[in-house]
Amino acid sequence: VERSLESLAREVGGKVMGDGSVVISGLAGIEGALEGDITFVSNERFIPLLKETKASAAIVAREIPDVSLPLLIVKNPLLAMAKILTAFTQKPYVAGGVSAMAWVSPSATVSKDATIHPFVSIGDEAEIGSRVTIYPFVSIGPQAAIGEDTVIYPNVTIYPRCVLGRRVIVHAGTVIGADGFRFVKDGEANVRIPQVGIVEIEDDVEIGANCCLDRATFGKTLIKKGVKFDNLVQIGHNVQIGEHSIIVSQVGISGSTKLGKNVTLAGQVGLVDHIEIGDNVMIGAQSGIAKDVPANQIVLGTPHLPYRQFLKVAAVWSRLPEMKKELALLRKRVEAFEKKTAIEEEKE
Amino acid sequence: VERSLESLAREVGGKVMGDGSVVISGLAGIEGALEGDITFVSNERFIPLLKETKASAAIVAREIPDVSLPLLIVKNPLLAMAKILTAFTQKPYVAGGVSAMAWVSPSATVSKDATIHPFVSIGDEAEIGSRVTIYPFVSIGPQAAIGEDTVIYPNVTIYPRCVLGRRVIVHAGTVIGADGFRFVKDGEANVRIPQVGIVEIEDDVEIGANCCLDRATFGKTLIKKGVKFDNLVQIGHNVQIGEHSIIVSQVGISGSTKLGKNVTLAGQVGLVDHIEIGDNVMIGAQSGIAKDVPANQIVLGTPHLPYRQFLKVAAVWSRLPEMKKELALLRKRVEAFEKKTAIEEEKE
Amino acid sequence: VERSLESLAREVGGKVMGDGSVVISGLAGIEGALEGDITFVSNERFIPLLKETKASAAIVAREIPDVSLPLLIVKNPLLAMAKILTAFTQKPYVAGGVSAMAWVSPSATVSKDATIHPFVSIGDEAEIGSRVTIYPFVSIGPQAAIGEDTVIYPNVTIYPRCVLGRRVIVHAGTVIGADGFRFVKDGEANVRIPQVGIVEIEDDVEIGANCCLDRATFGKTLIKKGVKFDNLVQIGHNVQIGEHSIIVSQVGISGSTKLGKNVTLAGQVGLVDHIEIGDNVMIGAQSGIAKDVPANQIVLGTPHLPYRQFLKVAAVWSRLPEMKKELALLRKRVEAFEKKTAIEEEKE
Repeated sequence: VERSLESLAREVGGKVMGDGSVVISGLAGIEGALEGDITFVSNERFIPLLKETKASAAIVAREIPDVSLPLLIVKNPLLAMAKILTAFTQKPYVAGGVSAMAWVSPSATVSKDATIHPFVSIGDEAEIGSRVTIYPFVSIGPQAAIGEDTVIYPNVTIYPRCVLGRRVIVHAGTVIGADGFRFVKDGEANVRIPQVGIVEIEDDVEIGANCCLDRATFGKTLIKKGVKFDNLVQIGHNVQIGEHSIIVSQVGISGSTKLGKNVTLAGQVGLVDHIEIGDNVMIGAQSGIAKDVPANQIVLGTPHLPYRQFLKVAAVWSRLPEMKKELALLRKRVEAFEKKTAIEEEKE
Repeated sequence: VERSLESLAREVGGKVMGDGSVVISGLAGIEGALEGDITFVSNERFIPLLKETKASAAIVAREIPDVSLPLLIVKNPLLAMAKILTAFTQKPYVAGGVSAMAWVSPSATVSKDATIHPFVSIGDEAEIGSRVTIYPFVSIGPQAAIGEDTVIYPNVTIYPRCVLGRRVIVHAGTVIGADGFRFVKDGEANVRIPQVGIVEIEDDVEIGANCCLDRATFGKTLIKKGVKFDNLVQIGHNVQIGEHSIIVSQVGISGSTKLGKNVTLAGQVGLVDHIEIGDNVMIGAQSGIAKDVPANQIVLGTPHLPYRQFLKVAAVWSRLPEMKKELALLRKRVEAFEKKTAIEEEKE
Repeated sequence: VERSLESLAREVGGKVMGDGSVVISGLAGIEGALEGDITFVSNERFIPLLKETKASAAIVAREIPDVSLPLLIVKNPLLAMAKILTAFTQKPYVAGGVSAMAWVSPSATVSKDATIHPFVSIGDEAEIGSRVTIYPFVSIGPQAAIGEDTVIYPNVTIYPRCVLGRRVIVHAGTVIGADGFRFVKDGEANVRIPQVGIVEIEDDVEIGANCCLDRATFGKTLIKKGVKFDNLVQIGHNVQIGEHSIIVSQVGISGSTKLGKNVTLAGQVGLVDHIEIGDNVMIGAQSGIAKDVPANQIVLGTPHLPYRQFLKVAAVWSRLPEMKKELALLRKRVEAFEKKTAIEEEKE
């Protein structure tokens, strides 16, 4: 693909400074860029590197004096970069059809323009939408449904009756719809509570590699529109996650917990079951959350605290041994005083 | 399946209040239940909902006045619910035979009434018992043995010589028998210690999705009868887990550590190597356990403390900055005092 | 394989005490060893067991009086054990060729002496080196390259263009080259930044089961020579890990973070993005690392502290409630004093 800088500017709603007719054929980082590439500066401290880059143009947030390079000025360079890189790298969809080396149940419905690679297994009454791509070693359980334009990478397992929306991306090794972890004691033994619900994943959700999203006991585990998961995330039965939330790697969310819209959980966070996290909450890495968090809070720690308070506590925490010594010393000084006074009082 | 309420009561050892002849054809949550369903109340606070449910009967722990619904009264409604739901949802096993699209070594032994789906690989001299179900993309290594009625979901890997008991369930993506993580330094390089042991899993164990259970260096990693694992759990080489223990999601247990019977490890707990956890121990979420825990304890934290003590410490922890200020203030007050006294003494 | 004790001693650079002509045919732990086995003592406290072992010889670190067993004396018994066990258990490579039940793109290059099991998928223009073994349900993406003598266990996914060196071992379920987790907000929505880089894995790296190593945004995520990963490890986009580092189970390393040589990260450690960890650093289990760690440090905790300091802090931490009480008591004593003095001063 070749594009003029001007046409790229129109596409991302930016303005050009310098020669808008320069031809751009790719996008690269500031140091790896070659002639014909456009590069980008999303952090002011990299501006000096613009003088050395071999790129033919740069996406920036403001006018930069003394730079000979043609510039594409936008409010959010990283967003413009994402859009332009997508334009350069996205290949048009070509329907591959169903491989003769796949196994598709006669009762399944597979769109004529889907792409089913070799070694895919599609169960009874499953439904595969238009322009869906399913890579090798993916198991689609009976009565599962996969929406249009969804991509499922290798070695993914979709259990029976689970539903994926449109433009969903599921990375390799992820498991959707395994049984929720619910047992009840019968004497010593743990008796399994059958998990008869499903997992439903709405449009534009992306799921990283080796994640586990458990099916509901009844009803559904629900991942709303636009949610993004990193790798190795654990989602318990009956969890709900609100629109556009971000779940970073190795997070674990226990059964029936509900997240609002636009929540961010940083890496390795753990949430207990049956709590509610409000809209726009941000939870710092490794936090352990044992109760509700109201909307619009930034919290951190185990037990969690407001972000600023956590930083203060953490700063003192490392000085605990000194505090303990100080306390002991002070006690001695007070005791010495008390003794002395007692003696003086006796004298009196 | 259709059952009278009376026959269900007999099955779970409960008693009926109201019309025992009502016909039940399913089980559902109190809000999702329809006519013909039985529902259940395992928590007193949901009792008021019984007046609104569309269910035809309810499993409860005690007589409830003013409810027109026929009731099934049992000691443990959740346990009765698990049993009844199982009765309604469990399908009779139908042997599917070996798919022509599976690969089975000529030296493997597969029971005639097993069900081997397409795209399964069964290695040399492996043994697959009666009524075993193996889903697509499962690799059974050479000389592995799978006991009767066991179910292995898609994309599971069983390494050579590992042994699974009867009625075991292994969810998708789990890996049983990969090498234990043991290296020894040779100058800079890390030299691998071959892991020649196995993993043995006893009867009635259930393993979640994307777990890893490593084989032993020598001997075996041993998971005893009735243990239940959630998803993404890590079990090191030579670990032993006692009967009926519960291991929640994202727990990691390091090499050679031993757990007693009926232990519960909550989510994201980590255990170092070579320690022992006694019978009936409960360890709270995210705890880091670096030494033995005697039987019958409830512990929490890193380093771990008895549960009640942990709560006290955690309550004070967030007030560390105030404590530090208070300490500084007190020091000043004592100093002021000491100075004053010194002056007075000089005067004298 | 049968070997004389003398020939084993020559191989590992040790010296024999006792009969060097004894024939050894295996290696086993001190309690499981049988006649014909050599055993080993890597910890002084197991020396007494030498009197009871059925082994025919033992690897030890020093001369041991009163033991009738022939001894192989070496500096590092565990290292000698690793080498001898490898000698006894390593089978000569036999090329299995490409299974008729594998799918190999016509444009891929597969060495004639590779072993490609049934149900393997090898994409366009991929390159598979000599003596490579690929187990069932492995997907090798287009243009990926696998170096000589590398072993890839079942259910592994290698994304397009990723590069693995020689003698690499990848355990089951691991995913190499899924998209890095980078999104940019566009109003409410999260817009994906295409990840056009790769993962490169150098020689002699070993990767555990169900790990995730993400591809770079641009350039490469780089795992240098001899690095060893345990299971369920998360490696973000553009991470670099220096030679011979050890990454224990359930560790998460965020995007663009760099580790030096010979670093050790214990289990469940989390590292934020864009930090640097120096050579030979050791980080204790469950630590959360939010800033650079200079070379040759041992650190622990969240926030992390030098190891010794952490132990001191942790010791005080459990006594926080007592400290708080003590502080309150002291304040009262000081107040009482101050009041008294005030009264006395008034009197004066």
